[in-house]
Amino acid sequence: MSAQTIPFPVERRSRPSRFLEGLPAPRTVPLPSPFRLRHGGQLEGAELAYETWGELAPAKDNALLLFTGLSPRAHARSSAEDPSPGWWEEMIGPGHPIDTDRFFVVCFNQLGSCFGSTGPASQDPATGRRYAVDFPVLTIEDIARAAKAGLQALGIERAAAVVGPSMGGMAALAFALQFPAALDRLMLISSAHRCSPFAIAVHSIQREAVRSDPAWHGGRYPADHPPVTGMRLARKMGMISYRSASEWQGRFGRERTERWGDEPFGVEFEVESYLEHHATKFTQAFDANCYLYLSRAMDLFDASEHGGCLAAAAQKLSHLAVSVVGVHTDILFPLNQQQALVAALQDAGAQAELVALDSIQGHDAFLVDKERFAPVVAEFLGRP
Amino acid sequence: MSAQTIPFPVERRSRPSRFLEGLPAPRTVPLPSPFRLRHGGQLEGAELAYETWGELAPAKDNALLLFTGLSPRAHARSSAEDPSPGWWEEMIGPGHPIDTDRFFVVCFNQLGSCFGSTGPASQDPATGRRYAVDFPVLTIEDIARAAKAGLQALGIERAAAVVGPSMGGMAALAFALQFPAALDRLMLISSAHRCSPFAIAVHSIQREAVRSDPAWHGGRYPADHPPVTGMRLARKMGMISYRSASEWQGRFGRERTERWGDEPFGVEFEVESYLEHHATKFTQAFDANCYLYLSRAMDLFDASEHGGCLAAAAQKLSHLAVSVVGVHTDILFPLNQQQALVAALQDAGAQAELVALDSIQGHDAFLVDKERFAPVVAEFLGRP
Repeated sequence: MSAQTIPFPVERRSRPSRFLEGLPAPRTVPLPSPFRLRHGGQLEGAELAYETWGELAPAKDNALLLFTGLSPRAHARSSAEDPSPGWWEEMIGPGHPIDTDRFFVVCFNQLGSCFGSTGPASQDPATGRRYAVDFPVLTIEDIARAAKAGLQALGIERAAAVVGPSMGGMAALAFALQFPAALDRLMLISSAHRCSPFAIAVHSIQREAVRSDPAWHGGRYPADHPPVTGMRLARKMGMISYRSASEWQGRFGRERTERWGDEPFGVEFEVESYLEHHATKFTQAFDANCYLYLSRAMDLFDASEHGGCLAAAAQKLSHLAVSVVGVHTDILFPLNQQQALVAALQDAGAQAELVALDSIQGHDAFLVDKERFAPVVAEFLGRP
Repeated sequence: MSAQTIPFPVERRSRPSRFLEGLPAPRTVPLPSPFRLRHGGQLEGAELAYETWGELAPAKDNALLLFTGLSPRAHARSSAEDPSPGWWEEMIGPGHPIDTDRFFVVCFNQLGSCFGSTGPASQDPATGRRYAVDFPVLTIEDIARAAKAGLQALGIERAAAVVGPSMGGMAALAFALQFPAALDRLMLISSAHRCSPFAIAVHSIQREAVRSDPAWHGGRYPADHPPVTGMRLARKMGMISYRSASEWQGRFGRERTERWGDEPFGVEFEVESYLEHHATKFTQAFDANCYLYLSRAMDLFDASEHGGCLAAAAQKLSHLAVSVVGVHTDILFPLNQQQALVAALQDAGAQAELVALDSIQGHDAFLVDKERFAPVVAEFLGRP
């Protein structure tokens, strides 16, 4: 793997955070201050944590901006400094689908998250307390605009490619709509140009589960006493929407598990044990308020707002090469949404293509079905 | 509509209950006492509330036993005594698909429910307190066996037909498996011979939402202070699994609603307002412990246990005419489950047929898509 290049002149590191415990403090870039948000409000002294892989070409024309899903940090791939596996470990590296021999890959921890970037879990310089629910309403457009400012802070004006899975696909699309001249190609994976009412319903109930936990305390929970019950429920609901019924049928069937204690109505089936295991991990790994803000940002996003309708929005992207990848078993962002987006882009004259994959893993397939996704990513990004 | 016949010699009426407020106390039949349950434990002095439509023929050979879904009461159709619309109002009556000119229709409030039948919300004669979580583990087989005993108390040994939608289809199937000689035809609607891991996951998270509400108090909440927050969350999750994404797309799209107050992260979209409205109604209308018991009963049910595998279970039903009705957009009990059941029944030699409907309303279609369901029910039950 190529040595890392740190083009930013002064190396800044994020403050310690409970969500980065045991990890090296990530590098950060400052955002313009104040940083004004789309729905009102502004942030002073905000910053983004980031990681990079590969080397920036002298012409600074080989950057690939990678957006994350809702919960990952900027650590998309292992590095000398942090050898733990990244969230897209196999996808990035020399000779890999996102080829670091060619691209200088930049991944930010998104604005509003809690892994070194400014978000609801960060200290509000105006009060000295965590922002919590005083953080301004966050939108996908803000996340994309912060990433654009982050690239500029690294000396990069244009991206050769912008790639994002899931919520990151929305951010990638919002990047392209706001800065159409700042990229050449766009790859949207298991994402959508807006949430369907089904997705909004799932997200809304997840947020309600967190807010209904008395430990949420209207958002003012102590950092070391988060609303774990609400977060566990929210995560379990998410897992239902991230996977597919047919995958679980094959994996779990109706297998029983060792009963966990004597609790009435406790875990009895393997699928319950699986949910419990993953959800419990999550409750400690992500800030509840950050979760609420990012979840709502997804629901608020609608690419149609950039022009008045989807067709008008697509007109802004008519010069781009766009790959839209979807999965037949995805119930959160189903294939008909990706089809609608590609149709609009093609009508607008963009060089847009739809790739529909047969993975059984549903929405999460991009994280686990390397076999199907790797060639698709390699082919699109490998074009001259 | 025909006059009601009350063949039970002494008219018994259920005790007053907060869940029957404003309604006439339903008639009840006593269950054999003690009534032993499949997973251990027994009930003393248990009873079932019921309603009937049509007249029992002198030969007592025209009874149609109708099981309910998880939450309805026995009031499937309006009557002189209770003119409020029943949960299958349009389906039942003289000349209707379930024709009361031909059938004597009997619907019980299922064992474990809270509308006049014995369940976790009933008083335990041993302690004088509500059973709550001291109620024995309830299974679908118990529900079916209680209904069989209820029929006997009404002087009926055999049913001309047994019909059940959703959870009621499981109970109808459990009735047929336990008492194969006590029916001629069987109609299972939007149901399954067992829950998939997806359905178990949904149900499990719903139960966890109720149990996580501090107001649940380990099941010992005061009758007038139920865990409404947990019940509201559980109901909303249920609604996601009962309907289809495509229906909501057409109904709600991304329409915004008037914001409900200033609460951060409160209701913003029409689909959220719809969920809130329906879920809030439900929190007052159903007992939380009854909900937990009935939900778990569904997950525990597996027709394969009646013989060792589905094929062996189907052998018990080889003499029956069976209609299995499913809906393409049902994600809770999807069509592939109904297909598997029909295939097993046909292999066993039963006269079984699958009817796959194109309703857009998902699992709940049997309650709302009268246009598609009425002819299917009329055709099967109308055969000589």
